[in-house]
Amino acid sequence: MTGFVSFVSSGPGDPELLTLKAVRRLAEADAVLFDDLSAGPILSHARPEADLVGVGKRAGRTSPKQDQVSWLLVDYARGGARVVRLKSGDAGIFGRLEEEVTALQEAGIGFEIVPGVPSACAAAAAAGIPLTRRICARRVQFVTGHDVTGGLPEGLNMAALADPGATTVVYMGKRTFPALAQALIAAGLPHGTPALLAESIGHPDQGLTRSTVGALAETLTQAVGTAPALILYGPLAGAEAAP
Amino acid sequence: MTGFVSFVSSGPGDPELLTLKAVRRLAEADAVLFDDLSAGPILSHARPEADLVGVGKRAGRTSPKQDQVSWLLVDYARGGARVVRLKSGDAGIFGRLEEEVTALQEAGIGFEIVPGVPSACAAAAAAGIPLTRRICARRVQFVTGHDVTGGLPEGLNMAALADPGATTVVYMGKRTFPALAQALIAAGLPHGTPALLAESIGHPDQGLTRSTVGALAETLTQAVGTAPALILYGPLAGAEAAP
Repeated sequence: MTGFVSFVSSGPGDPELLTLKAVRRLAEADAVLFDDLSAGPILSHARPEADLVGVGKRAGRTSPKQDQVSWLLVDYARGGARVVRLKSGDAGIFGRLEEEVTALQEAGIGFEIVPGVPSACAAAAAAGIPLTRRICARRVQFVTGHDVTGGLPEGLNMAALADPGATTVVYMGKRTFPALAQALIAAGLPHGTPALLAESIGHPDQGLTRSTVGALAETLTQAVGTAPALILYGPLAGAEAAP
Repeated sequence: MTGFVSFVSSGPGDPELLTLKAVRRLAEADAVLFDDLSAGPILSHARPEADLVGVGKRAGRTSPKQDQVSWLLVDYARGGARVVRLKSGDAGIFGRLEEEVTALQEAGIGFEIVPGVPSACAAAAAAGIPLTRRICARRVQFVTGHDVTGGLPEGLNMAALADPGATTVVYMGKRTFPALAQALIAAGLPHGTPALLAESIGHPDQGLTRSTVGALAETLTQAVGTAPALILYGPLAGAEAAP
């Protein structure tokens, strides 16, 4: 009997932001494949006899192990296991599902995607601000700040990203933000647009720094640090709490 | 002693997509203010002695009761209550927090935002597709398809929305989609761009219809129906399952 793979969104890191469905899938799993050590309290929902397999992919670099992750998923499922593949935030947003899903489809193995709380939503909530607001922020957009080489992705739609009437959230973009900000300002985004640096959201060392697009780019030119971060900018990003 | 208001995201409708934190806030609440009757199984997490107050705001029209909702929040909190204000999807995305938050700030009442699973993420997951993918869908954007009058909002950034390299999710946009599609196609979006109509996501009568931007606009010109819906379009929207 063939197994089944659940791509389970684990949310932004706070174990309280797991969904009931994620908890149930973890509790039913024969094997759980996860990316990083911060998954500790989340993994505690798995059964003691489940295989917990760290596959060690980290944000910010290509993983040499992608083929191996896909192979493990297929191998466990062929053995009849109920497999959970944990993905941080919402699995559908910058979760790089494509290689793993393709491997399952080629092997004829069933799968599901369990949605979760995106890191962007958790960052805004932690700052006490919404991501949209009538009239002034009618659109919200998420973009990744690096490609597989670690540089700013080519072909970004700068007109869309420089729109002062949207809230933009940049994932994994601390290192490239000075270059992005320069391009945004060249495309018409005001230098003084409110910006929020959200670091280690959902973790005990969470940090929120309010700034502007221009000033934050200057700061990140000097020092970046290693904490995972999101950058929000737009009219709502500067509010001390919700508008 | 003054109370406290938690804006709690209830997710897309499936009670299993509540977060553990949302369940805890509901279980601790003295009063729960909610918008619609579909909240039934979600409200069952509240204590039997909690006040459950339906405030009856429905998507698609302005509510005459907004002042009254704000007044209720302030009044409960002034009486010392722990208040939960339920908002569907993620509270920060088209959740119209502004009036209620302003009322709390003016009254000096503390609040928090508990993030949740956005309806857009649930719709994509139900369809088995991610919202982003390297190279072909580097940006994801959410926009609302109507303003307070029920028409297409003015000032939408059509260049951003017509970008064939993004995934776009239109909230509450079934009625206005024929007009939006016309504007998108005029702005350069190919008529044949894959589109997905996701109705009643997270509810037992959930429906997913795969189409194209042009064909879906034609369909929705003929008949709209009353089910709440999201429309996804972009390169990933047409996949039979994840890419």
